[in-house]
Parts: sequence; C-alpha cells; structure tokens
Amino acid sequence: MSGRACRITFLPIGKEIDVPEGISIIKAARAAGIHINASCGGAGICGKCRVIIEQGTVDGGISEKLSEADRAAGYRQACTARADGDVTIRVPEESGLAKGGLTTEVSVRNRASMHVYDMQSLRREGIFLPPVEKLVLELPPPSILDNMADAGRLVQGLTNQYNEHQLTITLPVLKKLRRVLREKDFLVTVTLSRPVNQKGKTFVSNVQPGNWTHRNFGLAFDIGTTTIYGILVDLNSGRVLARAGDYNGQIAYGEDVISRIIHAEKDEGLAQMQELVIATINKTISQLLVKAKPPGVEQGGIDRDEISSITLAGNTTMTHLLLGLEPDNIRRAPYVPVTRVLPPLRAADLGIDLPRHTVALPYPCISSYVGGDIVAGVMGSGMYRTDLLTLYIDIGTNAEIVIGNKDWLACAACSAGPAFEGGGITHGMRAATGAIEDFSINPETLEPMNLTLGNQPPIGICGSGLLVIVATLFEHGVIDQSGKFNRNLGTPRVREGKSGYEYVLTWQEESGTDHDIVINEVDIQNFIRAKAAIYAGVKTLVEEVGLAITDIEQIILAGTFGSFIDLDSAMTVGLLPEVDAERVLYVGNGSLMGCWMSELSNHIRRDVVDTVRRMTGFELSEVPHFKNEYIASHFLPHTELALFPRLGARLKKIRVVSKG
Amino acid sequence: MSGRACRITFLPIGKEIDVPEGISIIKAARAAGIHINASCGGAGICGKCRVIIEQGTVDGGISEKLSEADRAAGYRQACTARADGDVTIRVPEESGLAKGGLTTEVSVRNRASMHVYDMQSLRREGIFLPPVEKLVLELPPPSILDNMADAGRLVQGLTNQYNEHQLTITLPVLKKLRRVLREKDFLVTVTLSRPVNQKGKTFVSNVQPGNWTHRNFGLAFDIGTTTIYGILVDLNSGRVLARAGDYNGQIAYGEDVISRIIHAEKDEGLAQMQELVIATINKTISQLLVKAKPPGVEQGGIDRDEISSITLAGNTTMTHLLLGLEPDNIRRAPYVPVTRVLPPLRAADLGIDLPRHTVALPYPCISSYVGGDIVAGVMGSGMYRTDLLTLYIDIGTNAEIVIGNKDWLACAACSAGPAFEGGGITHGMRAATGAIEDFSINPETLEPMNLTLGNQPPIGICGSGLLVIVATLFEHGVIDQSGKFNRNLGTPRVREGKSGYEYVLTWQEESGTDHDIVINEVDIQNFIRAKAAIYAGVKTLVEEVGLAITDIEQIILAGTFGSFIDLDSAMTVGLLPEVDAERVLYVGNGSLMGCWMSELSNHIRRDVVDTVRRMTGFELSEVPHFKNEYIASHFLPHTELALFPRLGARLKKIRVVSKG
Repeated sequence: MSGRACRITFLPIGKEIDVPEGISIIKAARAAGIHINASCGGAGICGKCRVIIEQGTVDGGISEKLSEADRAAGYRQACTARADGDVTIRVPEESGLAKGGLTTEVSVRNRASMHVYDMQSLRREGIFLPPVEKLVLELPPPSILDNMADAGRLVQGLTNQYNEHQLTITLPVLKKLRRVLREKDFLVTVTLSRPVNQKGKTFVSNVQPGNWTHRNFGLAFDIGTTTIYGILVDLNSGRVLARAGDYNGQIAYGEDVISRIIHAEKDEGLAQMQELVIATINKTISQLLVKAKPPGVEQGGIDRDEISSITLAGNTTMTHLLLGLEPDNIRRAPYVPVTRVLPPLRAADLGIDLPRHTVALPYPCISSYVGGDIVAGVMGSGMYRTDLLTLYIDIGTNAEIVIGNKDWLACAACSAGPAFEGGGITHGMRAATGAIEDFSINPETLEPMNLTLGNQPPIGICGSGLLVIVATLFEHGVIDQSGKFNRNLGTPRVREGKSGYEYVLTWQEESGTDHDIVINEVDIQNFIRAKAAIYAGVKTLVEEVGLAITDIEQIILAGTFGSFIDLDSAMTVGLLPEVDAERVLYVGNGSLMGCWMSELSNHIRRDVVDTVRRMTGFELSEVPHFKNEYIASHFLPHTELALFPRLGARLKKIRVVSKG
Repeated sequence: MSGRACRITFLPIGKEIDVPEGISIIKAARAAGIHINASCGGAGICGKCRVIIEQGTVDGGISEKLSEADRAAGYRQACTARADGDVTIRVPEESGLAKGGLTTEVSVRNRASMHVYDMQSLRREGIFLPPVEKLVLELPPPSILDNMADAGRLVQGLTNQYNEHQLTITLPVLKKLRRVLREKDFLVTVTLSRPVNQKGKTFVSNVQPGNWTHRNFGLAFDIGTTTIYGILVDLNSGRVLARAGDYNGQIAYGEDVISRIIHAEKDEGLAQMQELVIATINKTISQLLVKAKPPGVEQGGIDRDEISSITLAGNTTMTHLLLGLEPDNIRRAPYVPVTRVLPPLRAADLGIDLPRHTVALPYPCISSYVGGDIVAGVMGSGMYRTDLLTLYIDIGTNAEIVIGNKDWLACAACSAGPAFEGGGITHGMRAATGAIEDFSINPETLEPMNLTLGNQPPIGICGSGLLVIVATLFEHGVIDQSGKFNRNLGTPRVREGKSGYEYVLTWQEESGTDHDIVINEVDIQNFIRAKAAIYAGVKTLVEEVGLAITDIEQIILAGTFGSFIDLDSAMTVGLLPEVDAERVLYVGNGSLMGCWMSELSNHIRRDVVDTVRRMTGFELSEVPHFKNEYIASHFLPHTELALFPRLGARLKKIRVVSKG
C-alpha cells in the first residue's frame, strides 16, 4: 500500500469511509460497519459479495463468478476488488439484504489505538535520557610537568570539559587506554554508562580513538518462549534502525515453559537451555548488525564494538534460563523463582557475542508467572507513572494482568487456557493464512461475512475471529447469555452437530478444507471459560485493593492478540471491562517496547527496581473469592449485567435493526 | 632460642644486659655497646675474641685456638659461646683494650622498633572492620502464602535479622542460591562484601549451606619485582595463619622493571608477563591453603571457596603487568602510567585460581615510580592518619619516600643506586651468609669487630654493614667529612690500595675468600652518593611543602634494609634526619603489611582513594633546587652541620673516649 487515502461511499446507505489505497472493498465495508455476505473469507470463491461500482474505478474484483454482462454493469466481487482512488459502491440487496432494502449496518469494529512513541515528547518529559552516552574529548598530551596517569588525564578532561564526577574506569578500558589515547593524538571518544540513581558512579565503559559520538547504539530483546525478537536502536535519536526475530532455539525441547524447565532439571540441561537461547540471540544480533543503516551513512552495517548496551526481557522461566538460574521451583508449588531483581551484567559473561564493555540489563520479574516481559510493558508503556487507574493485559495461554497507577500496582497471572490461540476449539487455529479473523452477520438471513488472514478460503478460526464470532452471535441473539444456540432460527446455518448445536461459518465447498467450518456450543463454553478466567482475575485483583472493576479508566493491551482484539466484542462478551475506546491503547510487543524504552531512559532504569518492589503479586488460586468471581463470569457478558452498563444500549440498537 | 632471658655482666666495666637465651656472647657484647676484637665475623677462626667466664656457664665457645690451660682458666671465644643463663664475663685487655685497661664502650646500636599490630587496639580504633563478613541465617521455608523469590527471602532475612540494607546479590550467588538454601533446610551462611563508603551497596558475594561463619579467610600479596610474598589471614581474628613466598616467575625476563617492560612491549609479551606473575601467585596460594591451620581445627587446610578476598600491592610496573595494562610509557619520559586508581575486580577475571565470588583489590599507584607497595605501606602503617610529621621510606635500588601526615602527603622516588644492596662497592654483596652486617672499632688499636650473617668468615659487606662501617670510621676519625681516610693513623688496617686508601676489615686468612676484605674511598664515595640522593630527596620534598627537614617527627622504615638499619649510623652519615629512636618504627614488608591491613579494614579501603588523591607525586629531577641539595649532601653528614644538632655531642663523646 502506498499510504494514499481513498474515500469510499457505500450505497444505498450513503456511508462514507476514508481508507488506505489498496485495501479490499470488503475490508473497507467491514471498517465502515457495512455487512456484505461473504462466506469464503474473501477468497473470491463464494461469489456472494457482489457489489456495483457506480462511480470511480477499483482494481481487480473480476472472476468467473461474474458474467460478461455483470462485469459490464459494473459488478465486482468486493472481496478481491481493491480501492484505487475515490469510489462509490452500491451493495445490492442479495449481497447485504436488510429490512426495507437497506444495506445492513453492523457495529464498526474498534481496535485499540497503537501507542506511538514520539521522541520529542519523551525528551520533554525527561524520559529520553539514554543511560549510555558518548562524549568526545581533546586532551593535552602529557609532558614532564604534567605527567599524570592516562586514566587521570581522561577523568580530568571529563571533569573540566563536561563537569562529570564520580567516574570509575573499567579494566577493559584501562587495558586499551594507553594505545587509544595516542592513536589520534589524545582526541578520544568516551562512552559513559550513567548510574541509575544519583548516588551511583558513572562508568567509563569504552574509549575509541577520534570522534565517534554520532555512532552510539543499543539493543533491545524480547525473549519469548516461542520467538525471540530484537531491535537495534540509535541511542542518539531513539529510533529503531533494524528489527529481526527467530524461533527460540529451545523450542526443540517443547513449546511451553514447563517442558523447558523439565529439560533444564536434567544433567547439563540448564547449560544447554542457556546455550540455545544465547545462540538465538547471537544469531539475531548478527542479523541486526548487518541490516541496520545508521542515518547519514551510505553503507549500512554497525560494528559489534559500537553496541553500548543490551536490555532483555522475558517471562520468568525464560529469564532464568537466559541467566543460568535453576528454574526448578517455578513449576512446583509454592512456585518460587530464584530471584525477582537482577544485577546489571556484562553481556559477554552470559555468552552473548558482544564486547566486554557492553552492559546487559535483564528485566526483573515479579513471580513465577508474572515475568520481566510484563514488567517491561508496565515500564515502557508509562503505566507506572500514570494517574489513571489502568489495566495492563497481555493475553496468551496465560493472561498476565497488572492493575494500578503511579501509586500502586497489583498483578497476577490467569490460566486462560489456549482458546485465544485457537486451542480447544473444534476448528480453532493460530493466526495464520486462512484463519477467520473477522466476522459479521446479516441479522435477517444470518448469512456470515467472514474475513480471513491472507484472503484465503477459511480453514479455521483464530483467537480474534473467535472473539468476534461469539460476540456477534450473542449480539444478534443467535446464542443466549449462557452460550446456548437459539434452536428456532430457521436457518440451515444453525444445526445440531456432533458436539451439540453449531453455526456453520463456511460450507465445505467454500472452505479451504474438506469439511464445513463451524463453531459449536462446546467451543463457546471453552471460550467463555477463558474469558471468565481473565475477567474474574481482573475483578478479583481490583477488589483485593479495595476498588471496583468499574473504576478502571484505561486499558493497555500487549501481545499479538491485543493488536487484533475487537474492543466492542471484548466488552460484549465480558472479556474486558467497559472503558471508552480512546482509553484503550495497544503497545504491541510490550516486552520489546519496554526494553527499547529502557535503552533510551535512565529514568526507567532507575524506577524499575522501585516499581518491582511496589508490584504486589497475587496467586489468584489463593484469593478466597476468586472462584466465585470465576463462576459468576460464566455468562455473556456476566451474571451481573450492571457491570456492563453500555452493553444494554448497544444490544438494543443491534437487535432493533435485526428484528425491526 | 627459647625466649628465656639471661642477664650478662661484662667486666671490668661492669655493664649489664638482658639478652635472650642462646645469643652469642659477642652479639650480646655488641648489644651492650662493648667492643671485643673479632676479625673473622664470629666464625671462631681468628681467636681474637677470648673472654673469661667468671660466674655462671656458657654453651660452646671452645676451639683449638684455646689451650687446655686457657679452657681450665675459664677462657672461651665470645663469638661461638652462647648465653645459657645469667653469666659474668670478663673481657681481657688483649681482646678489648682501651686506655686505662677498660673495655672499650662503643655506641649501642639502635634498631628501629618493630611495629606490632595489636588486633584489640585495632578493634578499638575502628580499624578492624573486615570488608567481608559472614552471617548465618535461619529462614522460614516458602509456602503458598509466602512464596517470595529465594533472593527476596534471603534479603528479607538479612534485613530482619541483621538490619542489612541496600543489598545486591551477584549472579554467581543467584546461580547456586536455590540449591544452597534447600541443602540444610534454609539454614545458610551469607558472605557480605561491605561497601567502602556508606553510599555504596553491600554485595552478597557467597552463600553456603549451614553455618560457616567461623571460617572466613582472606589473602594479602606483595607482588615484588624479585619475590612474591603471600599471607593467609583469618578475617575473624585478624591473625596470619600462613605465609609463603616465591620468586616472581617473570624473573627469567630480567631482574629489574625496565627489562620486564621491554619484554611486555613485544608481541604477546604483556600476556606472557601477566601469566607468569599470576602463575606465581597461584602457586603461592596453593601453598598457603595447605599450610594454613585455622584455630580450633585438628586438620589444617582451607578450601579455595572459603577465600573471600585478596588484596595485592606492587610497584607501578608490577601492578600494570598483573592487570595486563600496557607499561610502555612507564619507562619513557614523561613517565606516564596507565592509571593510578584501580576498580575492584573479580580475582578469577585476572586468572587467579580463586572462585568467582572472590574480590581482588589491587592497591593504587601514585606515579610511574611510586607504586602500590608504597601506598600500601602508608595505609597499613597508619601514616595517613597520624598527626606527626612523618617520613615513610623504603630503601632499595630506588628509595621511595613519602612525607606528610593526616592532612597532606608528598612523595617521590630517589635513584639511590645499588650501594645499599651491595652494588658498586668493591666487596659489596647482598645480605647473605658471610656478609658483614655489623661492625665496631677499637678506637685505640683500630682493630675491627666484624659480625657476619650466619657467623661465617666474612666474604663481603652488605648494605647495613656498609652503613655501620662508614659511620663508625667517620665517628672515630678514620675518615673525614668528605669520606677521605686519615693518612696518619699508624695502623696496617689503613693502607693505600688499588682504588686509593682503604681499611682492611678482614685479612685474607680470616676471611671466607682469597683476598682481604676492604672498604676503600671509591666505595665510600658511592655510599655517600646513595645516601645524598635520599637525604636530598627528603629535604627537597619537605621544603617543597614549606617545611624544614628538622620538622620531621617520626620515621617509618619499610623493606628488608629498613629492618637492619642502624639508626645512629644512619643519622651520623646523614642518611636519615635526626629523630628520637623511639620515633622510628619498622614495618617490615610495608606492601604486604598494607594488604594485610586492607583485608581487615574497610576503613583503609575507604580512605585509600582519598589518600591517593592527596598524595602529590614529585619528579625530583624537575624540582629546581634538588640538584643543589644533592651536592650539599655529599658530606658526612652534610655541609650544613646545623641539620644534625645531636651528632656533635655524640661525636665528642666517642672521640673523647677514643683520644682520652
């Protein structure tokens, strides 16, 4: 996509929407809240999404499903036609039928707004304060009347020229200092590692002959159980110069943390696990160094020696394995990690292929199941210094939740189960090509509009699709509060299947599989259990500190699922508490983002220890009323409807359209 | 010697002296200030030292030089007879002739009193404050309601049970923490490395299962150019449990620092030099661990893992080579070392065979020629906190001098040349068996009393002997103020030799060589140049800070030579300024002693950086009036006699006896 915007007008309803050039018409319709029947996921197979181009042109949208006459009349398939400038589109009755011939209006999907970091404002806030700084010095060469030691000369220069005090020169620097000073006639670039608090010492962590102040780089790494992501950051501008990622090399020993721990408990197992994760990090670093192109430089590439610092975050198990700490008690009651806070280290001491002067900062953990990835998110998103009562949530197999503000923070992990990753759902799958990721329904015919990743024929349902499907079915009365299907809808889409009643999302012939793609009552129960665990966790936690879930003012979403989550759906089903959409932020990979912010901010490095100390970790299983909360959450949205005051109004509107 | 004291009475003069049992009668006489002729160095050869036992008995003293009748009459040879109880001894006329038949009384030799460290008083002064402490903790085991991390549990225990704060746990400790805590049911011994200043953090540097608080050990090492000495210290009592030493493995590359630097400048030379010194240290550590026997333990031996700390000091070149710092500019004008102060290190990082938790503290240096060995002496002797204006001096080929008190310190190195180590002296030698180390003269006959190391026939003169010989010859007018012999003494002992006039200390047949042992005018000039360099250095330094040399109130002597130096002689010849004998202390190996004190005292560790900052290093060659001072010092004791007010009186007394 070029980034140019097009305006699309949908008739007969007359709804206008501005979309990026190149977007498919069906996705534009979805974004505008217009329902167009589409069973095949936007793959161009079912041919149900015919629209008429009344003004302007589109790119594509022609298939054998359209006759010559259709094409001449301006018919196109909405799923494969792409915006190519301003265009007016009519949705014919058969494609989007609604009472009175109007195209069905469905609720617009609300995604959380991406939290974008503006370096200028970070500077203004004092957050942009890189812990590693390079200064250039021109020193007087020694003479017999001024023959202080090389180190003393360097310190004197830093004191006189930059008012630096309390300096300690590390041994690796001392080892090369004599030669470096004399290589460019006592013109030298000094790398200073600032103390995180004012009492500390500043370390001279590197010296280079000549002026290298324009080249000062750091690395940030998210050490995921599955994937390791790294970015290379320009510490002068704060910008990300390169990104790279790879599967965590430990994956050969199991996909989850428990199997990794079990292997680490074997002879040499811990050392092996550490070597594997370090090997992946080293491979990723090599890629980043090659890919990065510093500004104002013709040739890309950065030397290892120019990396001043690396910050890493991962869950508690990944952090233990990274540092070679025994993870044994993480998986055994009472679930005791070796440590929460961690001392700063030399990257080279961990086996990371970086020079001896590079400092490694691993993010501290809270408990066995709330790790450094979450702490990084709390720090990087600024949650720890906000006035708003905020819910930070990272949804995966475990959902880690943090609630609080600048004054207090409480956290816990909820066993949501794998539903949000497609696990335990009949046709569930990971977010991959062919996964139904978005959905709407024609309230009259109950015909679906399926949108798939990669616009391929559906092969299953991913987490974000599941959420929208359940919410939409509930909103339109296809299922009731307890997730049971209305048996009297008179559509072949709802039928009794092998596992009870089900809704057919895609018939076999329009799917990418050899069977119909369905969602059944067992799937819906699994989904409800997952969302109930999370909501009950949030509610329990917020009530443990004497507040109500309705007091939450802001939600910060992290993780892949967070980026795809439909906010209205999440609030309809009772996964998230009701909060204004503009008060929901998405930070992407919170762990990586927090490490990036740490590379840029001594402010954050200083505050992290204090924040971790303030973060009270709860074991939800040990909080007496959690179980009751969990049971009470086994409804859509909840047994206590008063917790979702806005839902009633929304349902009324939807159902009026649907039944009116 | 058993340590029992005997009283010896010398007749006819009636002088009494208390000496340790087993001392030779001739040494007792020397200590009492009684001259007995003895040309052969106490080897029993010359037979000139016959004395009569009038009361009591002695052990030995019988040789073929004594007839049966002599023996029966109570004659014994003073050199080989040893005190065996109280005894009265007559010195016959032929052995110690003096005017009027009295035994010659000569000046008693004053040695500096050994500075003895009393741990109790160090404790009272607050100096005994070991930087590494072991504490035992009994922790509650974790439960589901108290499942904080292992590290947090440890810190909480230290805070609750010992009021410890600001703790950082090192990675090596974190790596074994889980297992160690559980090995003895959460009974654990924690090693704390205290910060040197109150702002700093305390490091948890080791953990051991069970209670090991009674075993806490440290090492102190003097890294000499020639020899490396180490001691193993009990950090609970402060006592030295073992001593060991060996030649510095670098010695194969030359005996002096310059040849070591030259080798270090070659490819791989620096790494090689570092490996060699580390290898010697490692060998010495192994010996210390085997030799040490902790108190209250049947079986000796200490485990490497029990060593909490090691402090090392050496001259600036040795310190550079130990740490792998390039020493190149130490030997080239303007003589710039890489660094003065040094960060604390992990011993293992230097290749020292100690566990990762052992901290290595190298003593800082002042300049290329005033090194960590001197700083260690200044710290360990307490000079840096005395009110008295003190001269600290370590005499070798270079004499390093420090002048000052608790408010200021100035230091310099003087090129004394090798005279004090026997170099450049016709019959000079190192302090080894057969070296004349003490001397007196019969003022009438000018016959010598030579005492040699090991009581062997003389083969040469060592530094301390040279000092006493020159001083004695001067005191008795055998040589004049400029070191020239009185040509008119009428004794065969003074004669014209190959290098001008000379005094025959030992005739060939009484010596251990094939020639007469002599001291000639060239030797004396060399000696005068050496003492002049030192005295001029001291005078220049003290005047540079606006004081006079006569203001010096205390002298601290370090080094081997310092232990043998005769104070009266040193002040007679003008090597040392005049100070009361009780204000002269000997600290032995100042470098080793300072390291030992550092192992026991955070006080000293804290103050050392500040002290080094206060120590102004002077390049004497760059101080304009040094050359004049040097020339003015080319007399015995000095051109300016007023600088030695007590000498006149002493000389008068000696010469009255001599000429009376």
